[in-house]
Amino acid sequence: MMEFIPLGTSSASIVQDRGLSSYVLKCNGDVFLFDCGDGTQFRLRKAKIRLNRIQAVFISHLHGDHYLGLFGILVSMSLARRTRPLIMIAPEQLQHKIHTVLGIHGEVVDFPVEYVSLEDSFEFGEVYSDHHIQVTAHALDHGIFCVGYRVEKQDQHRVNGTLAHRLGITKPEEFQRLSKGETIQLPDGQEISPDQVINQEKTIFAYVSDTRPCQAAVDLAKNADLMVHEATFSHTDEKRAIATKHASALDAAKVAQSAGAKKLLLTHFSARYPDVTVLENEACTIFPHSEIAEEFRVYRIDPDFEGR
Amino acid sequence: MMEFIPLGTSSASIVQDRGLSSYVLKCNGDVFLFDCGDGTQFRLRKAKIRLNRIQAVFISHLHGDHYLGLFGILVSMSLARRTRPLIMIAPEQLQHKIHTVLGIHGEVVDFPVEYVSLEDSFEFGEVYSDHHIQVTAHALDHGIFCVGYRVEKQDQHRVNGTLAHRLGITKPEEFQRLSKGETIQLPDGQEISPDQVINQEKTIFAYVSDTRPCQAAVDLAKNADLMVHEATFSHTDEKRAIATKHASALDAAKVAQSAGAKKLLLTHFSARYPDVTVLENEACTIFPHSEIAEEFRVYRIDPDFEGR
Repeated sequence: MMEFIPLGTSSASIVQDRGLSSYVLKCNGDVFLFDCGDGTQFRLRKAKIRLNRIQAVFISHLHGDHYLGLFGILVSMSLARRTRPLIMIAPEQLQHKIHTVLGIHGEVVDFPVEYVSLEDSFEFGEVYSDHHIQVTAHALDHGIFCVGYRVEKQDQHRVNGTLAHRLGITKPEEFQRLSKGETIQLPDGQEISPDQVINQEKTIFAYVSDTRPCQAAVDLAKNADLMVHEATFSHTDEKRAIATKHASALDAAKVAQSAGAKKLLLTHFSARYPDVTVLENEACTIFPHSEIAEEFRVYRIDPDFEGR
Repeated sequence: MMEFIPLGTSSASIVQDRGLSSYVLKCNGDVFLFDCGDGTQFRLRKAKIRLNRIQAVFISHLHGDHYLGLFGILVSMSLARRTRPLIMIAPEQLQHKIHTVLGIHGEVVDFPVEYVSLEDSFEFGEVYSDHHIQVTAHALDHGIFCVGYRVEKQDQHRVNGTLAHRLGITKPEEFQRLSKGETIQLPDGQEISPDQVINQEKTIFAYVSDTRPCQAAVDLAKNADLMVHEATFSHTDEKRAIATKHASALDAAKVAQSAGAKKLLLTHFSARYPDVTVLENEACTIFPHSEIAEEFRVYRIDPDFEGR
């Protein structure tokens, strides 16, 4: 199980009390931050998420509303005596900007920042993995270099008891060896591999922002349990969406449908919609499991989710 | 009359709901921003101050909590279609940082930013003036290059009626010419200069942050109607104040007393004081017109103020 918490759902021009792009994914005690608009450290504080629990930051692109909160966060992490490295997955120009503003390691920021720098020519690939999750990025279609992220969490390997008994597996040690990934031999000589009896459950989360609808967005969200997609505009403002290389709520819904996602959260709302439920209604005409991302709400990402 | 609005009164580590250093001075419809910690654009919004009313920004020094909110504000000003120049008075390294993050004029920020860059060797001088105010800066004592600012507002020249009548001035046109700054000749041949009959009223505001107590702080606040002075620590934590080149509330009060200021607002509070009234009480033992700066409160700065 993972948890997703939107911290900021406004596009560039802030309105009402909405924050700029920033999202938290929690997994096995670690916190992952996706984008980091100006003011994000105050929203993390409001969400009661300690800065130094952040393991890695994933930046989609270098428009100000998606990364300008990083400087303040890095300073605050340092003041909070962080020592463990922070992993920073981002377009390559970010490293130079951070060094210019804050100095190289040891001046203002006295803990290691490990950059995974994505060059403009980057198209697709794994950008992060640990014991629990694997993250891949795909280049999107936003005018400037921009990527979306897909997080796959391998859930605990569990031997399926029904399948196991059907194959004649009965001893506890046989179950244990299979769950460790070993192939076993039964008394009758038959070999049983883990693949035959283990449920390989995955939980999948996808973050798609900012972009025109595109195949990369569909690939990112393939079978996602929860996908977040920008919906800056309504389809009634499609010309504006095309001109600014953004998506409409309808575009996002089509991506969700093509990807076979289970649930879609819409975000990155233009200031022109005082009531964003019009965007939710628009998306639901195509993909009924669409919702407006609600700031500070905790969304459980669960492979057992079957829609609302 | 000027108005002063504190937006953020926290020192580097944010606590409770306090913001990072940022203060607004309003004068004749213009807004001046003093320091600009991370998140300032959201606090300006909360204070209902439109970004594009800001005429000039005065940065004291380049510790992150005093300037990292600038990037987001510049982007938002541009999105709000600002065209008129923004004047940026700051340590010289700021310009390079802004250019590196946001690009030179025309890329992200498409209005002119006019830098008044203060070199590390700067000690004292006028840094800004317009029809209403004159601003001087003094280098303070904070380890890295840091300046405080003194704002003098020349109030409307008014001919003092009592003085004028005593000198034999009776005609409206004589009053008018004197108030325009002209010397007049009375029917008996006597010359009267404006200095003899005009009240030269000034309103004085001073911003002193961050610093050890020093003569420059006293000079900045000389006869100030309102002075703001950092009070990061209590005098009971004096060793810490000295080590980090900050002032205690008691230090600030002594500066206010030496300067002959009318009112002192304390700010830039360390996270170690959950209740900052201890700092107010400490300052009041020396300078009774001391108060904790209250975020979002509007303080009138008035030369007629006689203490509370």
